[in-house]
Amino acid sequence: LSASSYIQLRKSAKKDLRGDDTTRVLAELISESLHVLAGSKTTQLKSEVREKTYFAFSRLNKLSRPLRSDLWDVELATRTIEPFVTGTYGKIPTNELDKILYTMAMSFCCATDLQKQGDKKTPATFFECFVGNIFARELGVNPRTQVDVLNLDMKATLPTDFLFDLGAEKCRIHLPVKLSTRERVVQVWAHQRVLDGVYGVGRFRGILVVATETKAGTESLKVTEICLPDQWAVYQMFISQLRRIYYLDVPARYSALPRVFPYIQVKPLSAFFAEKKKLISPAAE
Amino acid sequence: LSASSYIQLRKSAKKDLRGDDTTRVLAELISESLHVLAGSKTTQLKSEVREKTYFAFSRLNKLSRPLRSDLWDVELATRTIEPFVTGTYGKIPTNELDKILYTMAMSFCCATDLQKQGDKKTPATFFECFVGNIFARELGVNPRTQVDVLNLDMKATLPTDFLFDLGAEKCRIHLPVKLSTRERVVQVWAHQRVLDGVYGVGRFRGILVVATETKAGTESLKVTEICLPDQWAVYQMFISQLRRIYYLDVPARYSALPRVFPYIQVKPLSAFFAEKKKLISPAAE
Repeated sequence: LSASSYIQLRKSAKKDLRGDDTTRVLAELISESLHVLAGSKTTQLKSEVREKTYFAFSRLNKLSRPLRSDLWDVELATRTIEPFVTGTYGKIPTNELDKILYTMAMSFCCATDLQKQGDKKTPATFFECFVGNIFARELGVNPRTQVDVLNLDMKATLPTDFLFDLGAEKCRIHLPVKLSTRERVVQVWAHQRVLDGVYGVGRFRGILVVATETKAGTESLKVTEICLPDQWAVYQMFISQLRRIYYLDVPARYSALPRVFPYIQVKPLSAFFAEKKKLISPAAE
Repeated sequence: LSASSYIQLRKSAKKDLRGDDTTRVLAELISESLHVLAGSKTTQLKSEVREKTYFAFSRLNKLSRPLRSDLWDVELATRTIEPFVTGTYGKIPTNELDKILYTMAMSFCCATDLQKQGDKKTPATFFECFVGNIFARELGVNPRTQVDVLNLDMKATLPTDFLFDLGAEKCRIHLPVKLSTRERVVQVWAHQRVLDGVYGVGRFRGILVVATETKAGTESLKVTEICLPDQWAVYQMFISQLRRIYYLDVPARYSALPRVFPYIQVKPLSAFFAEKKKLISPAAE
């Protein structure tokens, strides 16, 4: 992977996240990553997650993060790079869109894993730009990444995740993006709480986007999913309310959450495209 | 450092945090650590913090975390191990107590750094036991580490930091303990918020104990303090209210917080011994 494309991504994402330049650099990085991985060996992993099988790419003594066999589809992802750039990919049926979004996002992360294992920041930044670009294009505006907290005689800014302002009388979206959440997830509910406190409950709708919750043992090659559904329920009840939690690979134990109190709406990211209008309508839900 | 003493600490802390066994193993680990460090070289670090100078212990290619020169006092700490075990050390003047608590806590962390750099869990667990033992002995009860969240038809437990129940009509204390906070600190305010929501605002008083916020560059040998005072103010205003934040080495930029809105009470840990009674009185403040 060329470092220059990645630097270019950070630059153009900062300047215009929804702009054509950012979209094109994302497409380039994905194509390049798929190419790198095409020349790498694969290793079967031992799945401890029911009904999911995983493999990883390997090179010398480096092993990529786990990939879900049924969601990894290079042929489909490659074919969709052009519609991704032009912005027509959102109309593809959701079962294919699941594979496309998963393969595109994970390709860069895995290619980076093979280059420098242990680098957490580069894949995280890529994923933020990838998801941020998708949402900014679909919502038609660029986000801000910090919020002013005005309070009588003090003025502070809280650096936060993406914040979208869709205009007067319209919705505002608080969009945190994470490769995985683990024990750090409470931060998301806490930031939503701050927004509720500063701007009023309901002004910002919280939408969390996560890639996966998988973890692979480097020795055992066992893949597990780290899930804390009881803690999520407590956060949703007592800290703040998130409107959606989208995953590229919905963890088995979270997929039941929409049907039990407090009804946390966990869905595959592909669902966003179909429910976007409803989700950003001020009256809905 | 012998791994067996550390395993012994975890065992006895789990069984009886305020018990003599735990206190004695802590004292042993501290003595052992001071002995290990006595045979190690020291390296002067470049302090970028005003009015504080730092050094580190080194061995082969390993470097310990930074130590504040004026708070590191082996002679005083060694002399106080006996009063620490018997529990009379709390009456020592605060300027000496600052050095004693700092040297005792950091000794084990630095000795571990020289054994296996990059091990974050062992020092963190030691520090939790050390501070937990101090508070449990001073408060006269052992803490719990999880809280039941009863809510109509669901029952969940939230694993959390130390929770002290001082008895009916008395105070309850929520005591998170961290070696440093950085960007993860919002978790503390969020957990306090959950306790406020589940049990009512004011039932649990939040007391955060932190060692330091220093960070040393391994190449540059520059020591800086990572502080986010504006974000702390926002959390204290909009998430929940912590009653005290105690430090072994109070960061320069946090020492002003008690005098500006929202008046976050940041103090050296030694202050706890003098204000303990006031702090746990249900009527006070």
